[in-house]
This record gives sequence, structure tokens and C-alpha cells, in this order.
Amino acid sequence: MCASRICETPIQDEYAADYSHCYGCGRDNADGHHLKTYLIGAETLSRFTPDAKYSGGVPGNVYGGMIASLFDCHGTASAAAFHRQDSSDEQPTLARFVTASLVVNFIAPTPQFQELTIRGVLKSIEGRKVRVEMTLEAEGLVRANAEMLAIALRR
Amino acid sequence: MCASRICETPIQDEYAADYSHCYGCGRDNADGHHLKTYLIGAETLSRFTPDAKYSGGVPGNVYGGMIASLFDCHGTASAAAFHRQDSSDEQPTLARFVTASLVVNFIAPTPQFQELTIRGVLKSIEGRKVRVEMTLEAEGLVRANAEMLAIALRR
Repeated sequence: MCASRICETPIQDEYAADYSHCYGCGRDNADGHHLKTYLIGAETLSRFTPDAKYSGGVPGNVYGGMIASLFDCHGTASAAAFHRQDSSDEQPTLARFVTASLVVNFIAPTPQFQELTIRGVLKSIEGRKVRVEMTLEAEGLVRANAEMLAIALRR
Repeated sequence: MCASRICETPIQDEYAADYSHCYGCGRDNADGHHLKTYLIGAETLSRFTPDAKYSGGVPGNVYGGMIASLFDCHGTASAAAFHRQDSSDEQPTLARFVTASLVVNFIAPTPQFQELTIRGVLKSIEGRKVRVEMTLEAEGLVRANAEMLAIALRR
């Protein structure tokens, strides 16, 4: 478990090898986005700048599917980290969470060509079920928020 | 407006040129998925087979972000088609809808290397606000469902 306030190892890099091929965040997916999420105190943090090709329906805005995708990977990583933090799980690899439900609210357009910041906080833990609340910011303003129910795979 | 029961023109191909660069479904995005959605009676239909690289957290399953992305583009296209069907909109181009909120429920794993079928039905229309309910099937079984609130851009 990460002992310092800021974990230097991305959460996704601790996934077991079998679960490391996710297009959004798997270290072993050669073509993927390789989203990296960090646990910082009681919050999780990812930063990502989508490629120019990820334009949305309105010129200059980021593709909504990209925003949902970032929340999806950030949320399952956050759930794994919060779960371990809560349970003092001493297993050598993190529990791997999958998404049961994802609610995304698009609050304001997300401009392209900017670094996006995704943050997550724990809402609740009940056994293998973890709820995570998230925001996505560009240029210091929240552009979208999300809530995920994530469930740990049995191991 | 499409007069026959099955519209042969994809909804996305009727978007105004300014709104045709979406990564998920824009005809003018050279790198995108080019999702095509059809209005068939009171239902919308898209079919899409994700590339092998779009693996999810569990081997052999489709990336959750891809599933959310397909719902995002299918939903806004459906909203545009249902809105025109409801309002007998005679404008030369479809109203362009953007996503206000998207709820995705992942019901069962979605296997890779299969054609996915996305269906949409109208839930409600209130002015520029259209709610669409959707399902995503693989091998004849519903793997995920979704609900979108889409809002038409002013024109």
C-alpha cells in the first residue's frame, strides 16, 4: 500500500497482468490511452489531453464519448484505490473493479486542445460495491461530473 | 424527411456540415468510428463491430468507454430523428442534439469480436429536450442499457 500522501505509482500500474489490457488505461494495451490515476490523500486525480481527432458534435469541443471514457477508467481505478484504503487490503495486487453503472452530466462544453483534470472522491463502500463521484475540469472549470457504481471482481 | 418505413440515409449523414466532425459518428472525421444510425419506424438502430484493440478490463470483453461512446452518438442521432418525426420539422438539415446527461447500466459482459446492435426508442419530448432509451446487444442478448437527455442546439 502507498504510504506517502501522494502515491507515485499510478493505480492502473498495480492491476494484475490479466486485467491490464483496457483500451482506456491498461499498461499492456499498445494502442490505448494509458490513462494514469493517482491517489492523493482522499482524492484521486488523472490528467489527460485528448488528441485533436477527438472532436465532438460541435467544432472545438471534446467528443462526449471521450469524456465518458475518461470517467469510466478513472472511476474503476478510484474504486480500487478507495477499497484498498478502506479495507487495508494486503493482497499483492489491487482488486479489479468493473463498472456496473455510470451517470455522466455534461454541464458545459469541454474545449479541445487543453489538459483535462479528472478528480474522484469516495461516496460509499458496501462490500464489493464502491460508489465514486467525479468531476472533469478544463481551464479550471468543471465541464462534466459523473457518478459510478463499481463492483470488484471476485478473486 | 424520410417517407419510407426504413430510412436508407443514416441520421448522421443529414447533420449540417459544421456538426459533422464528431469522432464517434461524424462523416467528416477521417479517424473516427463513423457510427451510422437508422430510423426504422419508431425505433433507431445502429450496428458496430469494435476493433480488437478496444478490450476492456477483463480479457475478451469490450471496453466500457466504447459502449458509453456508442450510446452517446446513437442517442443524439436518435433524438434528432425523433424530434423531426414529432415536429414535422421541414428544415433542410436536422436539428443537432448534444448530450446533457447519459446513464449507462452495464448488465452483462459484452464479448469482443461480435457485431453490436444498439437500439433506441423515444421516451419524451419537451421543446428542445428529448429523452431516449437505448439498449446494446451482442449475440442476441442485451448487455447494457442507457438513457440520455439530449438538447437541440438553437439554430
